This record gives sequence, C-alpha cells and structure tokens, in this order.
Amino acid sequence: MKIIIDAMGGDNAPVAPVCAGARAARELNIDIVLVGKEEVIKEELKKYDYPKDKLEIVNATEVISNHEEPAKAVRAKKDASVVVAAKLLRDNMGDAMLSMGNTGALLTAGLLIVGRIKGILRPALGTVIPAKKGAVMLLDMGANTNCRPKNLVQFAVMGSIYMKNVLGIKNPSVGLLSNGEEEGKGDELTKATYPMLKTAPINFYGNVEGRDVMNGNVDVIVCDGFVGNVVLKTIEGMGSYIGSAIKDIFTANMLTKLGALLTLKGVKALRRKMDYREYGGAPLLGVKKPVIKGHGASDEKAVYSAIIQAKKTVETNICEDIRLSLMSMKNEEERK
Amino acid sequence: MKIIIDAMGGDNAPVAPVCAGARAARELNIDIVLVGKEEVIKEELKKYDYPKDKLEIVNATEVISNHEEPAKAVRAKKDASVVVAAKLLRDNMGDAMLSMGNTGALLTAGLLIVGRIKGILRPALGTVIPAKKGAVMLLDMGANTNCRPKNLVQFAVMGSIYMKNVLGIKNPSVGLLSNGEEEGKGDELTKATYPMLKTAPINFYGNVEGRDVMNGNVDVIVCDGFVGNVVLKTIEGMGSYIGSAIKDIFTANMLTKLGALLTLKGVKALRRKMDYREYGGAPLLGVKKPVIKGHGASDEKAVYSAIIQAKKTVETNICEDIRLSLMSMKNEEERK
Repeated sequence: MKIIIDAMGGDNAPVAPVCAGARAARELNIDIVLVGKEEVIKEELKKYDYPKDKLEIVNATEVISNHEEPAKAVRAKKDASVVVAAKLLRDNMGDAMLSMGNTGALLTAGLLIVGRIKGILRPALGTVIPAKKGAVMLLDMGANTNCRPKNLVQFAVMGSIYMKNVLGIKNPSVGLLSNGEEEGKGDELTKATYPMLKTAPINFYGNVEGRDVMNGNVDVIVCDGFVGNVVLKTIEGMGSYIGSAIKDIFTANMLTKLGALLTLKGVKALRRKMDYREYGGAPLLGVKKPVIKGHGASDEKAVYSAIIQAKKTVETNICEDIRLSLMSMKNEEERK
Repeated sequence: MKIIIDAMGGDNAPVAPVCAGARAARELNIDIVLVGKEEVIKEELKKYDYPKDKLEIVNATEVISNHEEPAKAVRAKKDASVVVAAKLLRDNMGDAMLSMGNTGALLTAGLLIVGRIKGILRPALGTVIPAKKGAVMLLDMGANTNCRPKNLVQFAVMGSIYMKNVLGIKNPSVGLLSNGEEEGKGDELTKATYPMLKTAPINFYGNVEGRDVMNGNVDVIVCDGFVGNVVLKTIEGMGSYIGSAIKDIFTANMLTKLGALLTLKGVKALRRKMDYREYGGAPLLGVKKPVIKGHGASDEKAVYSAIIQAKKTVETNICEDIRLSLMSMKNEEERK
C-alpha cells in the first residue's frame, strides 16, 4: 500500500508531514510518497531514520497557501504539491492521499482530478467529533453550501459506510440535523430529505437537534455544508471559550493552582478525549480514491494518526463500498 | 406600567411565574397581571406577600402544553392562558407580556393576536448568549426556518435596537453568520444578504463564523431561524457535555474533591456567568408590543429577571424605535 502525502500543506509543514511520513514508513509497513519541494523535503528527512526503499519524494515546485482562492489556485498552479499529489492518486501511483493544506484546494483537486464515484452528485467532507458517546461523524462540514435532499441522502450512505468500515461501528445510526425532533420540523431542505432517508439503505434514526451533536445517540449526523461548518466551528469556539475560562480559574492563586494539580489527571484525560488529533483527519467521501483532509494545525502526531486512518480507508475498501451502495440504490430506484 | 404574565406556562408553572409576579409587584413598583386558572393562581398566591392593588388575576381556563401543535392549539383554545394574555396586550390592558410556555404558541399568539409592526415581514426571536465579550444577541433562533435576505436585514436592525436600548450597548456591531469570514463566503441566503447589510442603518461588521458566537467581537449575530436554533442547541449541548465531564473529574476521589473545593469559587462564577437565567428571556422582536419568551425551565429567579427585562423593553420604547427605523428605511428606499 502506498500513501501520498502533501508535504507542503498545513501550519507545521514541512516538519510535521515529513516527520510523520518517515515514522509511518518505519512503523506501519507501508510505502510513503512525500510530494513537495524536493530540496526542502530532503533536508528535513535528514533528521529521521526510515527505510529508504519505503519512502520516495515527488518534486512539486509550487505551494497553494491558505489564503488563495481554491478553484483558481488549483487551475493556475499545475505544479502545486496538492495538485501533483492528486494526479499521482488518479494515475494509480498511490492508494490514498492526505493534505493538511488549503481545504478548498484539496476539495477542488479531489473533485476535478481524482474525480467523483459514478452516481455521487457531490462529495462531502466528514468530520469525526469526539462526543459523549464516542465518535460521531458530522457531514457535510463545508464542501457544499447549498444542498438538495438527494445530496443529504448520499451523505448519509457515505457516512454510514465510513463509520462501519473505519471505526468498526455495526449498523451505524444516522440523524438528520434539524430544529426539532418531530418529523414535521425543519427547513425546506430537511423536510424534503426526511422521507427519503426513511427509505434509504441506512439505519435512519430521525431528526436530531444541535444538542445531540455532543450528547446524542446517533453515529452519523447529516446536514448541508453551511450548517455543518457553522456547527463545527461553534463547538470549537465553545470548547476554546470554556477551556480558557477553566485555565483562568485554575491559575487565579496558589490555592486554585493546588486544586488544579489535584484534578490534573482528569483534566488532561478530558483534553485528550476532545483532541481532534486522536481522530485523524476529515475524509472527502464520494471521490474515487481515499482523500483525507488533515487539520491545518496538525502536528507530527496528528499527521501520523491521519496516515493510519488513510491506511484503514484503503484496507476497508471505502470507495468500492460506496460505489456498490450507489449502484444498488440506483437499481432499486429503477425497479420501482 | 403593567406586565402581563402567562402563569400557566413553563416547567415550573404556576409556582415560578406566580412567585416572581408577586415579588415584582412588591419590589419593582409595577402592576402585574397573572393570566391562568384563577383558583390555582389564588391558591399559590397565598404563600406570598404582595401589594393587592398592584396584582390582578385574569382567568383563563385552558392551557397549551409543550407537546401541542402551536398554530392549531392557538386557534382551537380561545381561552388558553397565552391566548388570553396576548389579547390583553393587544387591547392595551398591559404594556408587555411574558410566557415560559410553548414557544411556537407564543410566537403564533404574538404574530396573530398582538400583530406585526408595520413593515416588518417576519418577527424574530432573539436570544442573548453569555459569550466571552459579554452579551451577544443571536437571532432569529427559531421563529423562521426559511428566510429571505430582507428578513435578515430586519433582524439586524431589530437586534441592534434591542442591544442598544435594553443592554445599553452604544452602536452595536452586527455580524452575519456564515461559513467563512470573506465577503464571498456563504450560502445563497447569506451571499445575497451581505450587500444589503452593508447599506442598512446598522454598524455592520461583516461575516462571522461559528466560533465567533462565543469568542467573537460583535454584539448581534443574524442568521435564519433554522441555523440559529441549531447553533443555540449546539452551545447548550456542548456546555452540558463539558459541565458533566468536569463534574466527573471533580468527584473521582478524595483528592479531586479537595481540588474541586479549592477551585469552587471560580467554577461557581463561571457557571453563574453562563446561566441563561441572568439574561432574562428571548424577546420576540417585530411585534407591536413587547413579547418575551422565558426559558421553559425558568425558576422564580429566571422569571423575575425576565420581568425586569420586560420592564426595560417598555421603558426604552423598543417597539416604537423599531417602527421608526422601519419607516425611515422605507423612506430611504423610496427616495432612491
């Protein structure tokens, strides 16, 4: 198996992707392709031990930064690391790709270069959230701002397959994010989606509300990318708000510092549980081969987690399972 | 001034509204009307001291529960407490009304009985969120699931007036909730709304993201009611998740309990800061007279806060200010 890594993307590039790539080549018994400025990558690689026959560098002279307009940049910079990586994936020079760089550029490259699975109207970016019950996948989280009901149905199917294959959840339940639990609740999109989800080949739970993202019982939550993006960032913002408030409480004086010390173990465990790095990156579901978006702030550990995740998406044949599900849904429709 | 209270609405009715109503009559030098089952209210009132000439009961024999379909219930139950209260408000038998009951029923009663301010297309429910910077108003939070750009512009104007009049914020800044900060970001609704907000008579900040709800710099955040409802419940869910996780940490063993004791003061202060009860209820903005939705779980203290808030909305002439703003916007449009 060969995993292609955009070595230039992310706040900690090239250090984090190169370091994690070397470690993966050493520890995971897979081949790694690092894509980016060859000289920079070579220089960084000197720091690490790794099996030379399991790691190669593919030169790419350009980089797409976070501030560039994604679609334009992907078209203009033919030799950008993310573009070259996507072409390698398309041309079967690897089995999955991973980038911590510009999200929109990765989505564009995935869509235009790797290409959609037949029948998929729109790929979706899924995020695994560390919720009370464990891992919950929220999708779409930003790839599609205006969705139709059929898009959400496909998101539900793809999210279910991901949670089953990669996280080992049997018969994952799917909730439709709405403004009330009852079937009649929702906006035009969710009201039209609800009956379609009832007959889709998934374990449909019904509507769920905002509070169920962190506290609910479903494994997959579907919504359009506008809402998904807002929800994800609201959770991040609330987490950082409470986190900094607690820090202030703990550091107020000597006694509170002692209090912090006594509860340190639990606080650390909670912080670890809520750490996105433990959960790898966000898969772009619906493209022909696995494409993973790692968090922009990923350090070496986070990139390494995302590589493990990429490996698992390949091993469990996510893309083929999505393709087969879509085909059987289409056959089902035609039979009716 | 006379405040009309639905004494039958909310999880703690009639105790909380009756107790808070008696206290308000005693302490705030305002008149209180309690609407609901006369015998029940009279029995409850026996527990409290209050000036007899400042508190009256208006009998209403029916109650709309939280599980009833709002529009249907308001039409069918002519003698429901919330319906009778709204009629009293319409007929100038009071200056503002407050209910902790079925949100949809209150919205329907506000819209159909109290009526919209001339020019307002859709009233909006605004919630004041205890964010990092202090009070932030998010609206609409559930009255309107499918909005047009003009609705959001009116929400922005109404939210600004509320924050200025009731919370004393000079020149409140308004953010448009979107999936990115740049002007081009958003779904169809927000993209069309952005340029209209730029020319509206408000202090428009630009797009804000989910994380800015809790950590941002704006005083008012506008979005459609579907998104607002999801965001508000996501915040509630995240708060309750972290709250219970911290409780688990603090109660794990003797040492952590000591740690909890040492940090108790700060934790209590944070909890108080995040307590919705401190911020009163959610105003229904855009109806002819002040209508306030108190939280369903309100206790006596929360209802009392909401009464103070209702008093302030009357004193500061919110409804008249909204009417005048709408008129001047209309004149401005016609001049163009």
